[in-house]
Amino acid sequence: MMEAASSGANSAALIGKFVVIGAGLIGGSLAKGLRLRGQCREVIAVVRRAETAEAALAEGVADRAVLDIADVAAELGANDVVFIAVPTLAVEPVLAQLKSLLSPTVVITDGASVKGSVAAAARRVYGCLPPQLVLGHPIAGSEKSGVTAANPDLYVDHRVILTPTDETSPEHLQTVRNMWLSVGAEVLDMPIDEHDQVLGATSHLPHAIAYSLVDTLAHDIDSPNIFRYAAGGFRDFTRIASSDPVMWHDIMKANSAQVVRSLDQFMDNLARMRQAIADGDGEYLLDTFTRAKKARDKYTQAAVKSSKS
Amino acid sequence: MMEAASSGANSAALIGKFVVIGAGLIGGSLAKGLRLRGQCREVIAVVRRAETAEAALAEGVADRAVLDIADVAAELGANDVVFIAVPTLAVEPVLAQLKSLLSPTVVITDGASVKGSVAAAARRVYGCLPPQLVLGHPIAGSEKSGVTAANPDLYVDHRVILTPTDETSPEHLQTVRNMWLSVGAEVLDMPIDEHDQVLGATSHLPHAIAYSLVDTLAHDIDSPNIFRYAAGGFRDFTRIASSDPVMWHDIMKANSAQVVRSLDQFMDNLARMRQAIADGDGEYLLDTFTRAKKARDKYTQAAVKSSKS
Repeated sequence: MMEAASSGANSAALIGKFVVIGAGLIGGSLAKGLRLRGQCREVIAVVRRAETAEAALAEGVADRAVLDIADVAAELGANDVVFIAVPTLAVEPVLAQLKSLLSPTVVITDGASVKGSVAAAARRVYGCLPPQLVLGHPIAGSEKSGVTAANPDLYVDHRVILTPTDETSPEHLQTVRNMWLSVGAEVLDMPIDEHDQVLGATSHLPHAIAYSLVDTLAHDIDSPNIFRYAAGGFRDFTRIASSDPVMWHDIMKANSAQVVRSLDQFMDNLARMRQAIADGDGEYLLDTFTRAKKARDKYTQAAVKSSKS
Repeated sequence: MMEAASSGANSAALIGKFVVIGAGLIGGSLAKGLRLRGQCREVIAVVRRAETAEAALAEGVADRAVLDIADVAAELGANDVVFIAVPTLAVEPVLAQLKSLLSPTVVITDGASVKGSVAAAARRVYGCLPPQLVLGHPIAGSEKSGVTAANPDLYVDHRVILTPTDETSPEHLQTVRNMWLSVGAEVLDMPIDEHDQVLGATSHLPHAIAYSLVDTLAHDIDSPNIFRYAAGGFRDFTRIASSDPVMWHDIMKANSAQVVRSLDQFMDNLARMRQAIADGDGEYLLDTFTRAKKARDKYTQAAVKSSKS
C-alpha cells in the first residue's frame, strides 16, 4: 500500500471512503474531481500494477493506492462508495470478487458504457440486481486514456445517465446522484434498454464507423499520401478512432445487438446515398444533405441551450 | 456598382485588380485576406444579389461590388486575377461568360473542391485548357458559409493544392502560388486525377458518411431523444454534416466516380466489422481498432509536425 503526501480530507465530506477500481480516464477523473473538491474523506485507488499505483498518487488521483480490493474491503461500510471503472467486459469478475468482500451497506456503482450487459453480469453473480448496485454511465469520453489523463473537471456540464431499477435502493441512488452533481455533472435517469439503444446509435455506431473509415484509408496503397492531404474536417471526424481499442472492443461485444441494429439502418441509408451518387440523382443528394444539416444544426442549438440552462 | 469607404490599396501590391466571383466563405476569405494585407490594388466582388454586394462592402471583403462580371471585364489585363469561387457545378457557365470577356493576359483561377470536372468544363468551353487558367483548391472548409463567414486568416497554415498541366502558363501559375502564399497558405502541386482521388477518400467520403449518419438518426422514431443524449464526440463527428448542402451536392456529382469507389471500399470494410460485431469476433475488433488508432495517431503527429515546420 502507498500513501499520498497530502490528503483532500474534509470534515463536511459528502462521501466517506471513495474506492475507485481502475484509475484510467473515467475513474481517475472522478476520483481526482471528488478529492480536489473535498467531497470524500479518503480516495483509495485499486489498480493492477505498482507503477499505476505510484502514478495515481503522483497525479493527485488518490490518497492511497492498493493492488487488491481485498486489502481495503473490510474498512468499508455505510456512506462509502466503490466505483467500478474498468472496461465493460471486466466488470463481471470485479463484481464476483466484491460479492464476498463488501457489506451490503456499501454503495457500488460503475461507469461502463453499456448497461444491459453489466446488469446481466450482476444477475449472474448475485442472482438478482442487488439494492446496493447503482448502474451509471458518465457521457464524457475522450481519445485520451490512462491515469495521466485524469481531469478533475472532466464531468463539469457533462451528462451522467443512471439506470436504476425497482431493485435499486433509493438511498444509494441518491448518494450516487449527489456524487456526480458534486463534480459538476448533470444527472439523468433512464431505463437500461433505452440507454443501450440511444448510446448504440449516438456513440457506439459513430465509433464503429470512424474505426472502419480510418482502417479503410490505412489499407489504401496511397495511404501516406491520403493522410498527408487530409483536411481539418477529417481530423475532427476521425478523432473518436483514437479512442482506447480495448474499451471499444468491450463495448461493441457488450452492446452487439443494438450496434448491429443501428449499423444495419445506417448501411441501408448509405447504400441509398451511394446509388444516388452513382446515378447522379441530385435531388436525392440535395434533399438528404439539407435535411441532415437542419437536423444537426437543430441538435447543436439544443445542446448549447441545454448546457447554458 | 457600389464602392467601399476605405480601400486596402498598396503601391507595392502583388496583384493589380483581384476579382472574386462569389463572395462566400472561400472567395470572401481570400478577398478579405488579400485586401487587409495590401496584396492587391483593388478587390472587386461579383455577386448575384444587391444585398450580398452591400454585405461584401460592409464586411470589408471588397472595395467594389458589382452584379455582373461584364461591368468590370474591360478594365482587366496583365497582373489582374479573377478567382472563381462558386459551387463546383456553377464554374462552367462562369467560364463560358469569361471566355468572351477576358483578355488572355488575365489570370483565371478557382477554388472548386473537384478539379477533374472543372478541367473538363474548361475543355468544353475553350476547346482546351487555356494557359491563363490555373486550377486550385484551398483545403480549408468550415461548416460556416456565406459572406459574413469571410475570415481573412482562414488560409493561414492551411494547404492549397494547385493542379497545373502542361498547358498552364508558368507565369500565371507563379502569380497564383504567390497569391496563396501571401495569405499564409502552404501551396502544393498535384496532378488532377490524384487530387480527386485523395480528396474523394479524405474529404468527400467522410462528408457522405456524416450526412448519411445524421440522416439515419433523424429518421429514428426516437430522434429527439437520440440527439438529446448525444455525447461530445458525436458533435465533432457530425460537424461536417452542417456544411453547405448545395456545395456538397455539386462535389458529389462532380467527383462521383471517385466517391463511389471510396464508398465501396468503406462499405466492404464496414460490412466485415458488422459481421465481427454480430459474431462476437473480439480478435477482429481489437485488431482493427488498434490498427486504426495507430494510423490516426501517426497521421495526427505528422500533421502537427507539418504545421509547425
